[in-house]
Amino acid sequence: MGSGEGHFCIELENGTKLGLEKEPKTVAIEDAVRVLLQGLGEDINRDGIKKTPFRVAKALRDGTRGYEQKVKDIVQGALFPEVGVGLHAGGAGGLVIVRDLDFFSYCESCLLPFQVKCHVGYVPSGQRVLGLSKLSRVADIFAKRLQDPQRLADEVCSALHLGINPAGVAVVLQCLHIPFPNPESVSHQGWIKVLVSSGSGVFENENAEAWGDYTGLLKFRGVTVEKIPTRDTMRKSWCPSHGSSEAVAANPGMVAAVASILGSLGENPLRKELEETPGHFVRWLMNFQNAKLNGFTCGIKTLVKPKGECSHNHQQMHSELNLSFWSQCEHHLLPFHGVVHIGYLCPEGFKPIDKSLLQSIVHFYGFKLQVQERLTRQIAETVSSISGCDTMVVVEAYHTCMISRGIEKFGSNTATIAVLGRFSVDPAARAVFLERIPKSATSGIL
Amino acid sequence: MGSGEGHFCIELENGTKLGLEKEPKTVAIEDAVRVLLQGLGEDINRDGIKKTPFRVAKALRDGTRGYEQKVKDIVQGALFPEVGVGLHAGGAGGLVIVRDLDFFSYCESCLLPFQVKCHVGYVPSGQRVLGLSKLSRVADIFAKRLQDPQRLADEVCSALHLGINPAGVAVVLQCLHIPFPNPESVSHQGWIKVLVSSGSGVFENENAEAWGDYTGLLKFRGVTVEKIPTRDTMRKSWCPSHGSSEAVAANPGMVAAVASILGSLGENPLRKELEETPGHFVRWLMNFQNAKLNGFTCGIKTLVKPKGECSHNHQQMHSELNLSFWSQCEHHLLPFHGVVHIGYLCPEGFKPIDKSLLQSIVHFYGFKLQVQERLTRQIAETVSSISGCDTMVVVEAYHTCMISRGIEKFGSNTATIAVLGRFSVDPAARAVFLERIPKSATSGIL
Repeated sequence: MGSGEGHFCIELENGTKLGLEKEPKTVAIEDAVRVLLQGLGEDINRDGIKKTPFRVAKALRDGTRGYEQKVKDIVQGALFPEVGVGLHAGGAGGLVIVRDLDFFSYCESCLLPFQVKCHVGYVPSGQRVLGLSKLSRVADIFAKRLQDPQRLADEVCSALHLGINPAGVAVVLQCLHIPFPNPESVSHQGWIKVLVSSGSGVFENENAEAWGDYTGLLKFRGVTVEKIPTRDTMRKSWCPSHGSSEAVAANPGMVAAVASILGSLGENPLRKELEETPGHFVRWLMNFQNAKLNGFTCGIKTLVKPKGECSHNHQQMHSELNLSFWSQCEHHLLPFHGVVHIGYLCPEGFKPIDKSLLQSIVHFYGFKLQVQERLTRQIAETVSSISGCDTMVVVEAYHTCMISRGIEKFGSNTATIAVLGRFSVDPAARAVFLERIPKSATSGIL
Repeated sequence: MGSGEGHFCIELENGTKLGLEKEPKTVAIEDAVRVLLQGLGEDINRDGIKKTPFRVAKALRDGTRGYEQKVKDIVQGALFPEVGVGLHAGGAGGLVIVRDLDFFSYCESCLLPFQVKCHVGYVPSGQRVLGLSKLSRVADIFAKRLQDPQRLADEVCSALHLGINPAGVAVVLQCLHIPFPNPESVSHQGWIKVLVSSGSGVFENENAEAWGDYTGLLKFRGVTVEKIPTRDTMRKSWCPSHGSSEAVAANPGMVAAVASILGSLGENPLRKELEETPGHFVRWLMNFQNAKLNGFTCGIKTLVKPKGECSHNHQQMHSELNLSFWSQCEHHLLPFHGVVHIGYLCPEGFKPIDKSLLQSIVHFYGFKLQVQERLTRQIAETVSSISGCDTMVVVEAYHTCMISRGIEKFGSNTATIAVLGRFSVDPAARAVFLERIPKSATSGIL
């Protein structure tokens, strides 16, 4: 293990570094992750994944650090006297909302990260206002736990109410959950979206006047809160792990490993909402097991390669754009997803490669532990090999590991290129293909 | 000073807290900030600002922590062997770009934060790829210093080239600088935008083929890199502090205080690019001095109040939307800016208040050390007082302190409401006014 990642190496705000010895909890998570990797058919000593157990442990502990944080530490000393506010009835100062706070949280039902756009507001009382950043910091404490959207909204709301004792607190969350791949087909369901709210004090009643001002201010941001779903309907439909694949038995060793991770994070694995979580997470992971096959191999056999070498003078460029893919980052065991664009040069009269075959190739190399650079190269090599054509592949992806942990760069996305044959020596051919790719092809989130 | 903010209280990734004694550098910055506050005519013991010196010191040290970070610590152990990449000429793996990384940096010419959207890419060599998040982490080291856009691009580029020894590195930055208010008029100039680039290895020549692939991949994200400005033209036109107000002499005590801050951050205040920075920063700050007056007071005198009380039955709602404002957060000495929407109910036949007078009121209360809640209330009270009308004010703002430091919530924005008279008891009147405010009225950045 390299010196840079062998232990928690923590950078303080003033640049000083502290090297802490590994805690038993971190070691326990690393051991559990090794069980999961072996269950996926991986060699835990191969270069790309030998530090994965450490990275996963670090990301999980960081992503659930809210269990060890206290609201009191954040709001104390952050209330400022402000004459004239808090006189809601006849006075001047009213509602304060901080909108569009981006967070990630962990789904308590499947242990995958979900995205949260948080709008949090309050009506001051006692002529005191809270420093604006504290609304975000308090929300973050509860986002950095295993959560379900409604509970997250309720916990942020009641913590702020207790912490700053205002006339009322209102929280609206727009949450977005990764879809689960359907193991029976290569197509994907869409992202799961829910909108939840929670209110206290003047917002306690869902029909209270104060909500009118609040939703009015959200409308400018394009958020429509026409009808807040009732709690019971929302709860059942949220996490896609509550799906049809419940019947598939998960590897008991892997399930036990995930249960031990829950315990190491400070959770009670026997809590009702967490009972099925290890099974759900293992079933998600098993979509990415090594050497998994689907219809792709039969597809290859039916494709007839053209004979002889292509002549550059009579080549046509074919392209298939925006083929969606899902994969699992082998460095962090977190999903990455996006689109693949494939271009190839073939002789005139060559029948274009069937789109469904290209999509099968994309899925075949996507559904495993991967890195984007390798995925791009493997798709290019396979397309070139089965068709005999010069090939260029562009992959555009959002990496959950870049967004939900560590650097938390929400809009960031990664593009990679692989080129074979004429594409590797002809910039004009590359430019022609790149011109074909539509603007903002990658599907945004939220 | 409250226990919560009295010293560097640092939260580690595992939740443990460390209380470090204040360092001499931090104390020196706090002392300098007190000089600045007094130069602005502020009482440094008033509640809202008594902890401001500490907050500014903490934010500045955190915002320049890059001086104490090393690229080596980030990239070591983060290069993974990957067969097939790095064979650019005849092989498969090519360019890797991480796009749309959001950062803030500090302008070395005026000490204000500027926004950076960073696109960083490289062509692997030696069959080794870098963990994607490291591209962001390395860029952050150089963003967290006093910078100018071209130097930032050059430093990120050469540090990555030395650190990972690839076939080439390319960096494109879209930078956005806050405009300086023109002291002679209440109108503002627009934001200053520049696009800079830097390349090494296969990107060293600006006309190199590799740039074609790179700019092709950026085009999907709506970034057009048609022509990269030459370094000399860019440099002179970037920071608005190089403006016409050079002639205005800045308070020597305040200038010396800012120079001492530069030294405390680890910079050499005598470095050529920093020579005028203290003067620039002080001139910026003095726009927000206490008790500054402009044409606003004469405007008030000319307005004739209607006689008697308004009758609710014959009231009309007037509104003036999207009045722009600039202000300075008194908690962090950082700008916040946005738009003000003013609505008022007046008798039929009442001549609407002149827009220029309302804009003057907005500027009068904006151009000082403020908090958004107070700004909202003061505008409402003043409009009500000079017109005798029931008044409602909505302020929508982006706070640099929420974006450039600490929580770094890039898209976040804050809305506040103040209501007087009938608006405070009539939700329907509030709703009518809120309906008038257009969607996404607040000016976005980048």
